[in-house]
Amino acid sequence: MQNPSWFLYGPGSAKLQDVPIPTIKHEHDVIVRIKYVGVCGSDVHFWRHGGIGLKVNPSQPLILGHEASGVISSIGSAVQSVKVGDKVAIEPGFPCRRCKACKNGTYNLCSTMKFAAAPPDTHGCLTKYFVAPEDFVYKIPDEMDLEEAVLVEPTAVAVHAVRLAKVGYGESVVVFGSGTVGLLCGAVARALGASRVIMVDILRKKLEFAKTFVECETFLPNIEATAEHNANHILDIFGISEGVDAVIEASGAELSAQTGIFALKTGGNYVQTGIGKSKIEIPILALSEKELRVRGCFRYGAGDYDMALKLIREGHVTPNSLVSSITPLEHATIAWEKTARGEGIKNLIEVGDD
Amino acid sequence: MQNPSWFLYGPGSAKLQDVPIPTIKHEHDVIVRIKYVGVCGSDVHFWRHGGIGLKVNPSQPLILGHEASGVISSIGSAVQSVKVGDKVAIEPGFPCRRCKACKNGTYNLCSTMKFAAAPPDTHGCLTKYFVAPEDFVYKIPDEMDLEEAVLVEPTAVAVHAVRLAKVGYGESVVVFGSGTVGLLCGAVARALGASRVIMVDILRKKLEFAKTFVECETFLPNIEATAEHNANHILDIFGISEGVDAVIEASGAELSAQTGIFALKTGGNYVQTGIGKSKIEIPILALSEKELRVRGCFRYGAGDYDMALKLIREGHVTPNSLVSSITPLEHATIAWEKTARGEGIKNLIEVGDD
Amino acid sequence: MQNPSWFLYGPGSAKLQDVPIPTIKHEHDVIVRIKYVGVCGSDVHFWRHGGIGLKVNPSQPLILGHEASGVISSIGSAVQSVKVGDKVAIEPGFPCRRCKACKNGTYNLCSTMKFAAAPPDTHGCLTKYFVAPEDFVYKIPDEMDLEEAVLVEPTAVAVHAVRLAKVGYGESVVVFGSGTVGLLCGAVARALGASRVIMVDILRKKLEFAKTFVECETFLPNIEATAEHNANHILDIFGISEGVDAVIEASGAELSAQTGIFALKTGGNYVQTGIGKSKIEIPILALSEKELRVRGCFRYGAGDYDMALKLIREGHVTPNSLVSSITPLEHATIAWEKTARGEGIKNLIEVGDD
Amino acid sequence: MQNPSWFLYGPGSAKLQDVPIPTIKHEHDVIVRIKYVGVCGSDVHFWRHGGIGLKVNPSQPLILGHEASGVISSIGSAVQSVKVGDKVAIEPGFPCRRCKACKNGTYNLCSTMKFAAAPPDTHGCLTKYFVAPEDFVYKIPDEMDLEEAVLVEPTAVAVHAVRLAKVGYGESVVVFGSGTVGLLCGAVARALGASRVIMVDILRKKLEFAKTFVECETFLPNIEATAEHNANHILDIFGISEGVDAVIEASGAELSAQTGIFALKTGGNYVQTGIGKSKIEIPILALSEKELRVRGCFRYGAGDYDMALKLIREGHVTPNSLVSSITPLEHATIAWEKTARGEGIKNLIEVGDD
Repeated sequence: MQNPSWFLYGPGSAKLQDVPIPTIKHEHDVIVRIKYVGVCGSDVHFWRHGGIGLKVNPSQPLILGHEASGVISSIGSAVQSVKVGDKVAIEPGFPCRRCKACKNGTYNLCSTMKFAAAPPDTHGCLTKYFVAPEDFVYKIPDEMDLEEAVLVEPTAVAVHAVRLAKVGYGESVVVFGSGTVGLLCGAVARALGASRVIMVDILRKKLEFAKTFVECETFLPNIEATAEHNANHILDIFGISEGVDAVIEASGAELSAQTGIFALKTGGNYVQTGIGKSKIEIPILALSEKELRVRGCFRYGAGDYDMALKLIREGHVTPNSLVSSITPLEHATIAWEKTARGEGIKNLIEVGDD
Repeated sequence: MQNPSWFLYGPGSAKLQDVPIPTIKHEHDVIVRIKYVGVCGSDVHFWRHGGIGLKVNPSQPLILGHEASGVISSIGSAVQSVKVGDKVAIEPGFPCRRCKACKNGTYNLCSTMKFAAAPPDTHGCLTKYFVAPEDFVYKIPDEMDLEEAVLVEPTAVAVHAVRLAKVGYGESVVVFGSGTVGLLCGAVARALGASRVIMVDILRKKLEFAKTFVECETFLPNIEATAEHNANHILDIFGISEGVDAVIEASGAELSAQTGIFALKTGGNYVQTGIGKSKIEIPILALSEKELRVRGCFRYGAGDYDMALKLIREGHVTPNSLVSSITPLEHATIAWEKTARGEGIKNLIEVGDD
Repeated sequence: MQNPSWFLYGPGSAKLQDVPIPTIKHEHDVIVRIKYVGVCGSDVHFWRHGGIGLKVNPSQPLILGHEASGVISSIGSAVQSVKVGDKVAIEPGFPCRRCKACKNGTYNLCSTMKFAAAPPDTHGCLTKYFVAPEDFVYKIPDEMDLEEAVLVEPTAVAVHAVRLAKVGYGESVVVFGSGTVGLLCGAVARALGASRVIMVDILRKKLEFAKTFVECETFLPNIEATAEHNANHILDIFGISEGVDAVIEASGAELSAQTGIFALKTGGNYVQTGIGKSKIEIPILALSEKELRVRGCFRYGAGDYDMALKLIREGHVTPNSLVSSITPLEHATIAWEKTARGEGIKNLIEVGDD
Repeated sequence: MQNPSWFLYGPGSAKLQDVPIPTIKHEHDVIVRIKYVGVCGSDVHFWRHGGIGLKVNPSQPLILGHEASGVISSIGSAVQSVKVGDKVAIEPGFPCRRCKACKNGTYNLCSTMKFAAAPPDTHGCLTKYFVAPEDFVYKIPDEMDLEEAVLVEPTAVAVHAVRLAKVGYGESVVVFGSGTVGLLCGAVARALGASRVIMVDILRKKLEFAKTFVECETFLPNIEATAEHNANHILDIFGISEGVDAVIEASGAELSAQTGIFALKTGGNYVQTGIGKSKIEIPILALSEKELRVRGCFRYGAGDYDMALKLIREGHVTPNSLVSSITPLEHATIAWEKTARGEGIKNLIEVGDD
């Protein structure tokens, strides 16, 4: 196959098919020869349910994948920032650049964003050749390998969350959920100044891994107890009587959200990056009386990829240790299954040479 | 009686009793001869339930009231900002001035705040002589009468909410709840630049009054329908396809909070000032995907009283029209009953000369 | 001539020449049939000195003009926001949309900005047919005429300055310089909430006009006296003992900058929008001890044109009254001469039908 | 002597005299038995010139000193945050707590601040027993010695400056001046995330010391060359083509201020903390066109001492190495002379037991 690509047709139905190698239509575009694609929880959800919210229409199958790295294989006539042969991490959503959200510095909120693997018609990067604007591919340092470069995407997710949480020097931060994004949020929070990071998860083994990944304390919640009880327990154990400075919710669990709100100090910052149920119950009175700042968090925007790369390059975040397995492109479903079963942290798919 | 004061002993139990006229103990304190005290929903709740959250202990009865105006009757030796005879509005919560919250510019979040009528031991201002620090009494303009001056307190509540909602020129704002605070939020939002204010209430007569009080559009929600349906209805009717810029929730109703979140544009501001149930269900996915800013809101802080007074003086807010009745001090329970029955907007209690 | 255009060849040397009518190359571009072009001080400087900073190279003459209105005469295949026949105001600088400044919400700071009439090779809009991206033309309301639409550009300059000065409700603002930009800054400051606007100019007639244009107080500085003396005089006369909240310097005069710094309250905001000498002496000690915020100000950016248009549409700013004269295209030099002599406030050039 | 104290009578005239041991008048006050007092450039200026700006009146001599550490010797009846025997660093300026600046979170701008050693009548801490409110003394960790605790004051100056410069992760910062404050600004900037710190001084030996104190690069300016030339040289040498993110001017030199403005990127932050001439010439056109943010910087405010202490405790800043000499109280003039001659970095005066 010239340009093998995994298409999703519907729930549980995906096929590896050939498509023509794309050509450059815009002078600032580049073509990336994809090398590795990460599997994210959302990919698994797509595969199982045929989409998230919006479903794939079987008559218009969609190429999956949005965490990817590769090598520039050709460039448009006006491209100056990268050259053929450069190793790059890809930021997989391309905003319109013309709307208010784009011009205001919040392009992640662009209403006509073309994000990889979004139904109905924006194909993803689980393919061999992928087109992107030059300013959405990021040259990685020579010493970074392409496996690690896949992790720039979730690191950018974490950077976005930690910046929205306004984490600063000396602060205490509780991160709920110790999966890929939670772990990276913890590491980014420390790099951005947090003196204390408390990682929370309901799986003890995840907390054990967390301790190897980021300088942190850990908390295993009592899921039989109330959110308020868990919050007080956190504050007691760690001796933070006035409440924590910031909470990043990266688990999607209702109990976590509630616990986070109870654990915050007055005026504290709460950021919701995890996705679970579409509606949850929250302690609105506590939120009001403490004048909390609750912030939704959606993907990544201006400067997040640059900061993610710098954090990795300077050794503040070491996502290489999150790579759990590498599966060849033709067996992508194995990587999805692994992820669905909770095996490993970040499973990669390798797009080989033939 | 020298200094008649209404004490709450417990649910439904309150007595008008005499206490000694206070003396000035701190050089920056003043004594205010109270003239009018407003009845707020929380007063009624106190009277009926013996407190809010924390209850009054019958062995330590508490003077009620926190919305008040009066005339300076004596001043401490260092007082320079007011003089005996000045008409003043009172800001009824006195922070410690030493903690981090106080020093950071958020004294409303002071954890040792002495707020009028807060159990167990901070007396309120439903009394004849009340002591306050000079910087928590605000000289009102000559042309403002003392009845209107009572309304500076809820106007400051509204100022605080509208500032937290970061309402700026040209914006669209939806205010849920058209009681005293909601009405004032609408008026303050317009004064601070909102081009469109949409007042929401489930009582048609409140919306009718709202139109006389603030230049606004109104919306009567369908309480049988979903929040999402109501939100879309608001956006359709008023032709605001991209969502509203800000929502101020001043009703305490769960459906309002949900509707507000659905009605906001991406990146919009939501402020919770109303108090109802301590927990509510919210559409967290919509909040996340739109990167909303949800902000708790507690009382008023630095500069809010000054701005409230300026808004009234410059004619942007005309709270006089909210005064519905005036009841003499000895019949305060009548004013509470009226308020409990939803009669009038702001019922006042007058502290007469004997 | 098909597309008559005024080219600058060098100091004092400009010619009206024909060029081909442009064609649309990008699907989001439109062509505007220009109707009116305003003369700005910088145009006069260009004409007299052959440029500002960077000079025009006579072998590469440049079309002048950057304040313009017109009618859409054709649109690219993807254009949806405007249609042929729409009356528009033009934002005459087109950023790259890809650099950090563009993505961060500060496209006015784009280092590869294509701004009208900027040497060496970005032509201006003193021409009959001008190409612009659809998101840099703004449909004006039916009731606004095209003469007034030229003034949206300097109104956007004022909006940008007033927003950088963070002018809010109830504040006092001193505007130095009562030319087009100064007048508009005063009007925008009031619309954005300033309770007091003090307009300053060394010409009494300009201050007299200012009073007709914006609700303001005025101050004629004593140019023989020191800046400190003038500042104290302003504070005395207007009874602002603690200093003013914001200063907008729109004169370019050194004495004004100094006076503004002395007149500000501690923590006040100073914005430099006027351009005069490239270096000036400032009272750095006063700036430090008062922890002033001094902000450079360059053109206009995200949302400024939208706000300028809304301010005009809602009647807060009435720039029509600033139009002093209208000169036919072929006599553009007359309009430049008028402006050079200080005649009128805003002189327009009309691009007629033949 | 019971309470020996150094009084300034006028230029070059100071005497060590006894005064009564103070008593506690306010329930939240404490008395500190001073142990060490640092000598700051301003002390030397006071001693030589009889004041800074405002001069000491010989008939009302003033106790000097504002950088001090000691041990709590008695506490007021309401004090809970410290106890007798605690080692403390002193924040030597006490705001009124009632004015707008205090309530807004900017108490350093309080217009009635009582700052140590400020004429006419606020005595300093070059004394044996000094009274302070409990919230302006900071318990130091057991492992910190009282010599180092003197350095918390200049560290707080640096914290204030670096926070105003909004230094964040990954940024490049140029610090002009490598004296005590400059060195500490460099160290704090790195701790708050700066990836690159460039220390500038005209003395090579200071730059050599700087390299031992903070991870930095250094630049020796050419004082014969223009500011623009020096700025370009900095950008060239260090390969920062787009300009630096932040500049902290801690030298007070005009050439430094100018160089800083030229070296900044568009939208960059400039903070003036050094004090030299009261007026300087600045490149206003560059400031405008780059939309720089120039910020005055005055002492320290909310949270600065807490952060300074945390930075020292966590090892990010190691001010102990700045202590150059210790002189007994009775020979304080020797310490001033040393400092006047530029000997050492921070010279201390020890308040011994008799």
